[in-house]
Amino acid sequence: MKQMTGKQSISFSEPVYIASGAALVGEKEKEGPLGAYFEHVLSDPMCGKESWEEGESQMQLEAAKLAIQKANLKADQIRMIFAGDLLAQSIASSFGLVELNRPIYGLFGACSTMGEALSLGAMAAAAGYGDWVLALTSSHFGTAEKEFRFPLAYGNQRPLSSSWTVTGSGACVLGTKKTKVKITGVTTGKIIDYGLKDNQNMGACMAPAACDTIFQNLTDFNRQPGDYDRIITGDLGSVGQQILLELLRQKGYEIGEQHLDCGMLIFDETTQDTGAGGSGCGCAATVFTAYLLPKLESGEWKRILFVPTGALMSKVSFQEGQSVPGIAQAVVVEHEDT
Amino acid sequence: MKQMTGKQSISFSEPVYIASGAALVGEKEKEGPLGAYFEHVLSDPMCGKESWEEGESQMQLEAAKLAIQKANLKADQIRMIFAGDLLAQSIASSFGLVELNRPIYGLFGACSTMGEALSLGAMAAAAGYGDWVLALTSSHFGTAEKEFRFPLAYGNQRPLSSSWTVTGSGACVLGTKKTKVKITGVTTGKIIDYGLKDNQNMGACMAPAACDTIFQNLTDFNRQPGDYDRIITGDLGSVGQQILLELLRQKGYEIGEQHLDCGMLIFDETTQDTGAGGSGCGCAATVFTAYLLPKLESGEWKRILFVPTGALMSKVSFQEGQSVPGIAQAVVVEHEDT
Repeated sequence: MKQMTGKQSISFSEPVYIASGAALVGEKEKEGPLGAYFEHVLSDPMCGKESWEEGESQMQLEAAKLAIQKANLKADQIRMIFAGDLLAQSIASSFGLVELNRPIYGLFGACSTMGEALSLGAMAAAAGYGDWVLALTSSHFGTAEKEFRFPLAYGNQRPLSSSWTVTGSGACVLGTKKTKVKITGVTTGKIIDYGLKDNQNMGACMAPAACDTIFQNLTDFNRQPGDYDRIITGDLGSVGQQILLELLRQKGYEIGEQHLDCGMLIFDETTQDTGAGGSGCGCAATVFTAYLLPKLESGEWKRILFVPTGALMSKVSFQEGQSVPGIAQAVVVEHEDT
Repeated sequence: MKQMTGKQSISFSEPVYIASGAALVGEKEKEGPLGAYFEHVLSDPMCGKESWEEGESQMQLEAAKLAIQKANLKADQIRMIFAGDLLAQSIASSFGLVELNRPIYGLFGACSTMGEALSLGAMAAAAGYGDWVLALTSSHFGTAEKEFRFPLAYGNQRPLSSSWTVTGSGACVLGTKKTKVKITGVTTGKIIDYGLKDNQNMGACMAPAACDTIFQNLTDFNRQPGDYDRIITGDLGSVGQQILLELLRQKGYEIGEQHLDCGMLIFDETTQDTGAGGSGCGCAATVFTAYLLPKLESGEWKRILFVPTGALMSKVSFQEGQSVPGIAQAVVVEHEDT
């Protein structure tokens, strides 16, 4: 059924297929460099609700429904959901997904959550625990600023190393029925803490974790960076990217040719005033479903390593002077010739 | 390898074994009715650290180490950890478990987290994704009051329906090597929202979810309540218990003879001033590892249904007038004759 590979990775001997992917984003994301790839846009960032939180819940529900619809399924065919978000006690997922009335496991992986959801979803589908599994996550600029930073009306200045939380939700339906894109393996991340404490420079906090997971993936699968068409991190941004490339060089790997970062792809930092790039669970999730997945479907890319990255902190841990550890969850995604 | 059973359950054709269970609790828990079963007690609720949060992290780390030690393993033999807690962004787990340096998936299931961790851990072990998997969670009276309620120094009055958050952490090592206790199946919970809004009566908020999961388990496995020696919910407390029994009666099941609740077992409400009972992720986790597991090991009980229950809310959702939905994750645990 499965086949173990190395210390932290699983190689599925029977791959798991991605039946559909759907992204729903805000207007700022639509105005960015990937705008043409985002089909579904929120004209109202509150989704007609009365709070940012209810808006994010509604957005996550709509993304889930879009993915289920694109897979030509009904909600009650989803055997199991893996979902989470950035908010305290994951309220975006809990309140958003109650309407689907499906069995669910709640996750917390900060901005690595799409990697975690795809990993656990693929592990469940590969083991035959369900014909169809839904993996999804979301983030929202309004809720995240309120949760982690300052009131929006305060209009605080941001350092260039800070990131801009993506308003968006991405959802994938996974199954074992053959499609043009398959998940062939995962590498489970460790929590990596270099002791950095700057929550306005999360890229630097997460880069060591991205390095650790990518290095372990290459080791476990006995691959070179060139064996991937792209190695795509979640939301390191331009500052974190430089640190990742340098850390991997010190371990003997040069991934400069392969590396992309969802946070750098989704916004134009020169015209959109987004600092080092986009961030939030929704960043990797929407870029994956709207931009990366079609390139794998078409065969333009044959194999990528998708590595969403998370910064593990809360306002309490920050205010108590704790560091910001990182985690990165990697998924090997490949084109399937059919 | 696996065998599907019904709509929401998995029956493992090869069971997963519990290699060890360890609980670490606070002094109030040690003074309660289960005191004799708790071997490991924190004399300092801050574990020598400077904040409640750091104390909870340290407690979770120590419980993890105890479970690993009791299974005669080294930390680096743990292939994967499933862990979570009640705090915003799961900081108890993130900061507590970084030292173990093991691959990890973070969970959020509110007080149902031990059920979720055991479920996903068993699913991973049954599928062969790792020889040894660690499932754990924690809660802490000091951190939970700060996170959800009032400053401790305020000394607020509590209604009798309120619960008392357990200070404790419970951890289990799971594997496929035969022991005297096995996990033979799981039932994945749905989010159930009856629209209740009283966060001082969480038992009532969670009872409908417990009812839903228990009903589905009995249906999926084609069992009667009497097929279990005990059906044990997480932290419904005395108020939630009455609601659960009544809801199940309406669905045609009488579980009065089998039902126990970890929250009612851990404290003596008449002498310990704990309202309707204990609560928090640590309640079900410590009662399971210290009290239920030995009864399954000895064969006093042959089969139980362990159903940790969670109330899905945050202070933001509460203050915005949202309801408190519930979720319950069930695990079938059996004695193995060796």
